[in-house]
Amino acid sequence: MTPSRRLAAEALGTGFLVATVVGSGIMAETLAGGNVALALLGNTIPTGAILFVLITMFGPISGAHFNPAVTLAFAVRREIARGMALAYVAAQIAGGVAGTFVAHLMFDQAVVQFSSHVRTGMAQWLAEIVATFGLVAAIFITIQVRREAVAAVVGLYITAAYWFTASTSFANPAVTVARAFTDTFSGIRPLDAPGFIAAELIGALLAAAFIGWLFARETPAAERAPQ
Amino acid sequence: MTPSRRLAAEALGTGFLVATVVGSGIMAETLAGGNVALALLGNTIPTGAILFVLITMFGPISGAHFNPAVTLAFAVRREIARGMALAYVAAQIAGGVAGTFVAHLMFDQAVVQFSSHVRTGMAQWLAEIVATFGLVAAIFITIQVRREAVAAVVGLYITAAYWFTASTSFANPAVTVARAFTDTFSGIRPLDAPGFIAAELIGALLAAAFIGWLFARETPAAERAPQ
Amino acid sequence: MTPSRRLAAEALGTGFLVATVVGSGIMAETLAGGNVALALLGNTIPTGAILFVLITMFGPISGAHFNPAVTLAFAVRREIARGMALAYVAAQIAGGVAGTFVAHLMFDQAVVQFSSHVRTGMAQWLAEIVATFGLVAAIFITIQVRREAVAAVVGLYITAAYWFTASTSFANPAVTVARAFTDTFSGIRPLDAPGFIAAELIGALLAAAFIGWLFARETPAAERAPQ
Amino acid sequence: MTPSRRLAAEALGTGFLVATVVGSGIMAETLAGGNVALALLGNTIPTGAILFVLITMFGPISGAHFNPAVTLAFAVRREIARGMALAYVAAQIAGGVAGTFVAHLMFDQAVVQFSSHVRTGMAQWLAEIVATFGLVAAIFITIQVRREAVAAVVGLYITAAYWFTASTSFANPAVTVARAFTDTFSGIRPLDAPGFIAAELIGALLAAAFIGWLFARETPAAERAPQ
Repeated sequence: MTPSRRLAAEALGTGFLVATVVGSGIMAETLAGGNVALALLGNTIPTGAILFVLITMFGPISGAHFNPAVTLAFAVRREIARGMALAYVAAQIAGGVAGTFVAHLMFDQAVVQFSSHVRTGMAQWLAEIVATFGLVAAIFITIQVRREAVAAVVGLYITAAYWFTASTSFANPAVTVARAFTDTFSGIRPLDAPGFIAAELIGALLAAAFIGWLFARETPAAERAPQ
Repeated sequence: MTPSRRLAAEALGTGFLVATVVGSGIMAETLAGGNVALALLGNTIPTGAILFVLITMFGPISGAHFNPAVTLAFAVRREIARGMALAYVAAQIAGGVAGTFVAHLMFDQAVVQFSSHVRTGMAQWLAEIVATFGLVAAIFITIQVRREAVAAVVGLYITAAYWFTASTSFANPAVTVARAFTDTFSGIRPLDAPGFIAAELIGALLAAAFIGWLFARETPAAERAPQ
Repeated sequence: MTPSRRLAAEALGTGFLVATVVGSGIMAETLAGGNVALALLGNTIPTGAILFVLITMFGPISGAHFNPAVTLAFAVRREIARGMALAYVAAQIAGGVAGTFVAHLMFDQAVVQFSSHVRTGMAQWLAEIVATFGLVAAIFITIQVRREAVAAVVGLYITAAYWFTASTSFANPAVTVARAFTDTFSGIRPLDAPGFIAAELIGALLAAAFIGWLFARETPAAERAPQ
Repeated sequence: MTPSRRLAAEALGTGFLVATVVGSGIMAETLAGGNVALALLGNTIPTGAILFVLITMFGPISGAHFNPAVTLAFAVRREIARGMALAYVAAQIAGGVAGTFVAHLMFDQAVVQFSSHVRTGMAQWLAEIVATFGLVAAIFITIQVRREAVAAVVGLYITAAYWFTASTSFANPAVTVARAFTDTFSGIRPLDAPGFIAAELIGALLAAAFIGWLFARETPAAERAPQ
């Protein structure tokens, strides 16, 4: 696959992902009559479903990262070149923000908005660290042990993490930036985005270290005790 | 497979799909006590589920299009003969309308109805373009990269699109026609059907163009610069 | 597999299936606070899930019919011996009724009950014919075209059919008998069971005829026009 | 895989499982506005989803027991050494309790709590026996007949069992201990934990006996009647 096609896949995939998160959030909150559990369910099921779809489609084309934290982990493990990693992140952020704008257009809302949804504090940051650690560990371990299951694993992991983390598991810096541009159900106050992004990168780095340990080869005795 | 069996599969499959959309819409709205998010959930889960079933069953028999927008994309890519494509579309529309009638009979309602549900305007049309672009792109890319996952991809794509598009993602001209004949939860005013159908065909053609680019072979240098 | 193990699989599988239908119906109605859509959702998701589990487990052991309508279709197609088919049906009914009793014990209710839930009339019977036709067709076509997907197909078919049929898709004579013994959410008045069972057997026979046509071999010219 | 990696997988997997059960319980109850069916749905879907993820990831590393009842069944069948089995159980309990604490930290609650949720009595114990019997039987039969489906089978079994058993199917002594440490939706009064654990171990032993019978080889005639 040529670089332009890989970057198109990253941008389009992240765009559809964010359009789903933001769009289903608007739809769910509008229809749920004030019951937030029902709204979150109407946000969770579409997000998990579209992740399976997008990763199945674009996995063989770009690797289907859609997430700078995942791209960072690939870079740390030297499985993607540094220049391409930066281009991936740019495509993810651009695609993600465009996804927010398209969701607004489809729901007849102002295209550009800024969220007023406060999401901050130690508990929220811990939740983002845990969520991103789990996501990145799940991706890299599944690639090693059962590659064809990655799309299902990511879709179902996020389905769970929307509920088991207090932050509803953003776990993705590009999606965090894109969600700062919507003042609807799934938004995050721009002021709070850097804290979330820092927590997500910490979670990704911890996962990379864990994977490194888990799959490290045992040093053969011969190498440990050279003549 | 003989043409008559392929057309039977298209008609029966589209019929069961529409009976599910219309029937579960009636059931869900009747039971939901006025909570529209809950009604949409009771409409979404059965629709996604039956798509997996029908595509798994009829994929090896007719290709399991059940959708003139999908058949159009196959025709544009010259992967189905023009005459057979027209017969597919006729079978899909006939099967779909019959599906609406059977749903009405099962729920003891007037067999033929006309919807009064207004669905129109730029935002709705954009939603249908996006929904159908995504559906057709997902189908054709998955056929290329992981054919055995098409049934799961389509079922989960529509599960997501019911929520992330403002139009609840009709994304199918035969289903749109069939849903004009029910004045229940899932209906569309007959006057509004042509706008939806036009948007769906635009989305399908955009997807066909995108797929053409994505999977175009690089022109070898030898061909580009002949002696 | 010996006959005793096959029959144990049919009895235990039908028992767990009915315990799930009845038990989750009790749990869901008790907790749903009067919202029947929510109760039906809490009945649907467990039923679809356990069908995947039971068919995956017991498919290679007994074929995982758990349903006299399915066994009838196998018998019509001469894919099971008549004596074994009768033994299957007996095991399914005994296991199913035991499943109702175990559900009652787990929820601290009277073990033997008789339903007062009226389910009768042309619309309901049509729904059962459609539901069982679809179920049996889905099973037999999937066995032919993609055998490993049968468990997912049946689980998702019933997930859809709980909502798209007005009868909530019993589609199974053994389960119908077992549900006559519970006066809870999922029950059916004993007086109404025969009508449902007749409709289910009609649906199964129609499906067997349809499958026969769909997979009939073309008569070679040589045979059609002998010397 | 070295023992330290296997034990890390058991501890981390059980930890994420419990964090999901407890965390999604807190989230669901907080948002559900008093509707317990909705809260249970918001607890069920994440639990089923994370089980698929964790078993897919850690199955090839540790076997992904995450459950002393499952480890007991492996030990009874002599498929794990006794010392390793004890180490597994210790890792599961330690990981599970840590999972409760992390969930509390993410939701800004007191780290250590004791549940006041009464769960006791014959009906509840019978439910735990049935739930654990079904879980262990499903795991061991699926390992024999379709090993690659174990993750889906366990996730969907628990999805169903949350609703069809009156106890919401703990079915896991390590998770039972961990849930005694939370005074939220998913908790169990410490006083009631031993009854649940005993019932779970009985269910596991019954399942081991059933599996032994189901997969016993027929004694060949030659062996039965030696010269």
